[in-house]
Amino acid sequence: MKSRRILIDHGSGGLATKELIAELFQPLFSNPALDRMEDSALLEPQNGKIAFTTDSYVVDPLFFPGGDIGTLAIHGTINDLAMQGANPAALSLGLILEEGLQMDDLQKIASSLEKASKQAGVPIVAADTKVVPQGKADKIFINTSGIGFVEDGVELGSHLAVHGDAVIVSGTLGDHGIAIMGTRAGLGLDTTIMSDTAPLHKLVHILLGKFGNAIRCFRDPTRGGLATVLSEIAVASRVEIQIDEASIPIKPQVYSICELLGLDPLYLANEGKLIAIVKGSAAEEIVLTMRREKLGENASIIGRVHRTETARKGRVVLLTKIGGKRLLEPLSGEPLPRIC
Amino acid sequence: MKSRRILIDHGSGGLATKELIAELFQPLFSNPALDRMEDSALLEPQNGKIAFTTDSYVVDPLFFPGGDIGTLAIHGTINDLAMQGANPAALSLGLILEEGLQMDDLQKIASSLEKASKQAGVPIVAADTKVVPQGKADKIFINTSGIGFVEDGVELGSHLAVHGDAVIVSGTLGDHGIAIMGTRAGLGLDTTIMSDTAPLHKLVHILLGKFGNAIRCFRDPTRGGLATVLSEIAVASRVEIQIDEASIPIKPQVYSICELLGLDPLYLANEGKLIAIVKGSAAEEIVLTMRREKLGENASIIGRVHRTETARKGRVVLLTKIGGKRLLEPLSGEPLPRIC
Repeated sequence: MKSRRILIDHGSGGLATKELIAELFQPLFSNPALDRMEDSALLEPQNGKIAFTTDSYVVDPLFFPGGDIGTLAIHGTINDLAMQGANPAALSLGLILEEGLQMDDLQKIASSLEKASKQAGVPIVAADTKVVPQGKADKIFINTSGIGFVEDGVELGSHLAVHGDAVIVSGTLGDHGIAIMGTRAGLGLDTTIMSDTAPLHKLVHILLGKFGNAIRCFRDPTRGGLATVLSEIAVASRVEIQIDEASIPIKPQVYSICELLGLDPLYLANEGKLIAIVKGSAAEEIVLTMRREKLGENASIIGRVHRTETARKGRVVLLTKIGGKRLLEPLSGEPLPRIC
Repeated sequence: MKSRRILIDHGSGGLATKELIAELFQPLFSNPALDRMEDSALLEPQNGKIAFTTDSYVVDPLFFPGGDIGTLAIHGTINDLAMQGANPAALSLGLILEEGLQMDDLQKIASSLEKASKQAGVPIVAADTKVVPQGKADKIFINTSGIGFVEDGVELGSHLAVHGDAVIVSGTLGDHGIAIMGTRAGLGLDTTIMSDTAPLHKLVHILLGKFGNAIRCFRDPTRGGLATVLSEIAVASRVEIQIDEASIPIKPQVYSICELLGLDPLYLANEGKLIAIVKGSAAEEIVLTMRREKLGENASIIGRVHRTETARKGRVVLLTKIGGKRLLEPLSGEPLPRIC
């Protein structure tokens, strides 16, 4: 690359754009669908419904322990597909670059995108790059959209939780949020906590294959964390979800930092964890299966689904360690902007 | 809406995000796929290959004669699908909002998105909203990704142009570029030129239905304009494309402003025009069919495809009005940043 920084010309659609693509992106991302370089990628159809999702990533800082904005953009969109029971098939990549962005940083992020895409087995088949003048964006924003296919017979939904179901979480909560906090200037945090960013589609595939009929829904607790996702499920299903504080897996260091900063780990973002609502009778076996997988090694049953007494609206109740009860409302306010 | 401006909280994924969605977006965009409010939309499969595309929109200013960033985001992505011969089926919407964005402006843009989506008959089925602090973005950036289905037997590609083919343009060139220029502060241009932003999928559908076998490819000359798109086709097909300056439809006012500002209309962006490379023998009839449609009323044959003499690389030659020849290179540099 001739230039060490991104120039306005790199977004022209002309020669400089072609040079950027040819020198930086194509060597990394090359695949038949992308290499056609037409206005759309063309994909062979597969059986089943098509899942379609989109997410923009504006995380600050771009690089953090355990990953960067590129890793996050691949994993996050794969997870949105996986949560619907879809096998992710293809991703698109929309980059908005700020003039002056270091080419080295872009190179690192592109490598992360490639590595995450390859490891997950989900290719980037369509891409677009825009450049805005210095001061009009913050280095780089990434949109990834994705499509996947849902096998016939799979039916999942946040509205399907019923009395007697169990609530499972696939691992420790709050790691991503704390990893981001730890890298922000001025907080003076010295943590060894890494982001949990990871693609969950293989874990979901195993669970659906083995326990398909026992699973009501999967959700990934990103922005808003566990509490917000469970609230959404409780409202959609009109049930009361009771979770047991003592059984929620949280790393001691995450817990301490939350205490220190007055944060609640139940509202922190995660990028490699899933919540599953499952038939109560299958819960133990599902957790054992999850624990055999790296991404589910700390899986735990953390609660149960009950009828709502009011029959009006769903709600989430936390059974605290000291024996009390606390209503868990969805997140209000934004304790950690630009977490993903 | 309680707040008259976008707050950081609106991107939290919590209550403020839900309020924004419930009060502003859902009343406009409501459809069964979107209303599920799950991590992915689910769509019924259709026959044929799946086309998948993505584009981010960073146009400045947000509002311009003939449209705004919302109109553009819908039309642009529909057109990227249409150029591959796909019937557009669904769009995703990724919003990056700057804290402090006027709620009125967001409301106007949301209305444009809805109107353009409804008029084109292509629903928004998945969406995501992020908010970044003031000064970290420029009011609003929009990503739209799209999927469509390509009927069996349709085969289009920029590499399929051969000797004897004709080059058709569906209407006047440069209108979008000049409409944007005219609204930029400090230029003192007083023009009546409107952006040509429009969805081209219905025109494409008519042409494919009637002339399927005679059409080599469609391309929409957005960033980089006619010259850049034709260069790409010439290179991909290893042919020489000769275009006749006198036959290229350009509005006199666009031509005058280009003269004044030293711009070349062949490099200006268009958002509602297509280039078609077609079998020479069918060209006249195709143009007549296009002219019966509003979006093709100024369609013209503007050139022919020839063997390359060098057999090395494709190129584009302009036969000038005064009888000369000029090589048309792809765009280098960026005369008009943030045109789309």
